[in-house]
Amino acid sequence: MPFSFELFNVDHGARLGHIETDHGGIDTPAFMPVGTLGTVKSLSPRDLCEIGADIILANTYHLHLRPGEDVVARGGGIQQFMSWNKPVLTDSGGYQVFSLADLNRISDEGVEFQSHIDGSKHLFTPERVVDIQLDIGADIMMVLDQCVEYPCDKEKARDAIERTSLWAQKSKDRIRYRTKRDGYQQVLFGIVQGSVFPDLRKRSVEELTALDFPGYAIGGLSVGEPKNEMFDTTELVTEILPIDKPRYLMGVGFPEDIVEGIARGVDMFDCVMPTRNARNGTVFTSRGKVVLKNAVNKVDFGPIDPECGCDVCKNYSRAYLRHLFMAGELLGPRLATYHNLYFYLHLLAEIRQSIKENSFLRWRKEFYNRRESK
Amino acid sequence: MPFSFELFNVDHGARLGHIETDHGGIDTPAFMPVGTLGTVKSLSPRDLCEIGADIILANTYHLHLRPGEDVVARGGGIQQFMSWNKPVLTDSGGYQVFSLADLNRISDEGVEFQSHIDGSKHLFTPERVVDIQLDIGADIMMVLDQCVEYPCDKEKARDAIERTSLWAQKSKDRIRYRTKRDGYQQVLFGIVQGSVFPDLRKRSVEELTALDFPGYAIGGLSVGEPKNEMFDTTELVTEILPIDKPRYLMGVGFPEDIVEGIARGVDMFDCVMPTRNARNGTVFTSRGKVVLKNAVNKVDFGPIDPECGCDVCKNYSRAYLRHLFMAGELLGPRLATYHNLYFYLHLLAEIRQSIKENSFLRWRKEFYNRRESK
Repeated sequence: MPFSFELFNVDHGARLGHIETDHGGIDTPAFMPVGTLGTVKSLSPRDLCEIGADIILANTYHLHLRPGEDVVARGGGIQQFMSWNKPVLTDSGGYQVFSLADLNRISDEGVEFQSHIDGSKHLFTPERVVDIQLDIGADIMMVLDQCVEYPCDKEKARDAIERTSLWAQKSKDRIRYRTKRDGYQQVLFGIVQGSVFPDLRKRSVEELTALDFPGYAIGGLSVGEPKNEMFDTTELVTEILPIDKPRYLMGVGFPEDIVEGIARGVDMFDCVMPTRNARNGTVFTSRGKVVLKNAVNKVDFGPIDPECGCDVCKNYSRAYLRHLFMAGELLGPRLATYHNLYFYLHLLAEIRQSIKENSFLRWRKEFYNRRESK
Repeated sequence: MPFSFELFNVDHGARLGHIETDHGGIDTPAFMPVGTLGTVKSLSPRDLCEIGADIILANTYHLHLRPGEDVVARGGGIQQFMSWNKPVLTDSGGYQVFSLADLNRISDEGVEFQSHIDGSKHLFTPERVVDIQLDIGADIMMVLDQCVEYPCDKEKARDAIERTSLWAQKSKDRIRYRTKRDGYQQVLFGIVQGSVFPDLRKRSVEELTALDFPGYAIGGLSVGEPKNEMFDTTELVTEILPIDKPRYLMGVGFPEDIVEGIARGVDMFDCVMPTRNARNGTVFTSRGKVVLKNAVNKVDFGPIDPECGCDVCKNYSRAYLRHLFMAGELLGPRLATYHNLYFYLHLLAEIRQSIKENSFLRWRKEFYNRRESK
């Protein structure tokens, strides 16, 4: 079955849809748990199914360094390698090359960089990054893009979108020759850049949509810019992206950022927030965040969130979770991660239901009311 | 239902039995996964049920320091606190006081020591240790004993058994006044000491059995003595312990040690071996140990053990597990722990079946043959 996106309803900007891939469907708007190295830290694929994850994200840069795309390919592709038989999206590694690695040289050809692990030298060209992702076996692949920091002067941001468009063309050309792996389809999304400059964002959208990708990501946000600039830029971009293709806001974000992204027509999100926070003992609830290590939880035998129906909230108390974190026990991060991702995925399910019922605005108002009544 | 032990069959020294507690039954011979701080490191109680654990072990010394027995008691006892509704045995903390803590003073009254975590001062008397375990809510509690190192001169070993007997009497006296917690029974086992001196071991057994405990542990072994001394001492002790009470060989051991312990009439075992090894990436198989990080596993897409039926062996390859350990991913220790404990518990189940069928000797022979054919 070929990759497809169906749009069922739009309610005050919020879109209800469905993506179909050869590894299964994804109800949108969707949150994709981050599984950088082919594992959502501390969770098993069975846990992820239990909490309702439709798709996870892995990372090209990280998997290229460890264990290497050759190992993943020989293991049957990322899904079989990690025992997850649902869709996987791989980020291109552009962001990691510019943020984690020691950068040696960037040119129209590609990026030369040194591994953050052992200093070994690598060259990422747009073609090579497509090849790596084909080997990894991602259902949805991302083009190599040039990410810029915030704030960034306009000239640099312009150079970056020009190069990103050039690389998008090269990636598109590359994938023409290899689009099937073991009988399943692997599609490539473009990435819109342009920092917070409206004219650059518009130009980036125009150049990328001319290449007709099956989906588009909005990159270069959530990198330190004020929230209003993030939302304004998102809105500007989604308004001119084709309606019939999924839009993915990369690296976003807090629950409220996701709500606002959805209000602006975004279909897909990913963020390390729920998983990274969990490992530090910070959990999300319907009334805001809770720091489990706080002394107030020492003899609190209630659940993290009385309104949450997850396995962790049904079986474990804040006092027990605090004990696990205080003692550095491995079960602590695991249970907190399970809860946080359930919280995110359940939030998205609630939002999808509200869009279906044309009550997204009312749902959003209630969402903010709950948090204020904290 | 009161605590009981039933013996079904004895096959060439190996005993098949069943312990009943108010939190459920334990088929013996049994291996008890170690959950020192009220968690079997990285596993959930659901995992433990899946792999067939009947009982787990927690530790009085560790739980007293963190989170404190008051917190565990207010949380409904260790079973409710950790969401494990099966039996729990608590070690008295004697071993930890003598091995982990800074020791200040030992007398007939008890042991004064400093916490290995923050240097805080504590006094463990036999009475206090019973009180702590009653608060923790263990189904099976252990008396405070004086552990000696190996080798140990005979005079010191004699002092230690005399004090252990005195403390056993004091513990027994203490428990007379508090033996029920929320309606469930908590029983106390005695601990035989005496290093590797046959006459001291005999005397220790005589003094403890005179107190008529519902079960007896063999302490002070697996502390560095040669294997033959461990087995000889075990045999000497089990031969004179009452037949109708369970015997627990503390801190033992490797799979082959457990097999030999069972051959000498032991009913219960505990050891950190499967869990600690798992966290270092060493896993047990029917043909011996495997170090997952070894390069040979890099592209080995077979399971840890083709003869193992556990969830990990059914779903994950050695190559994936190696990748998790090389990348320091939390899922690695979790999956390895799951497999290792399954391996141990499955081994015990096989042995119980062989005793039932009066084929323990044949089973033991096959067990060693499998390992030699490695």
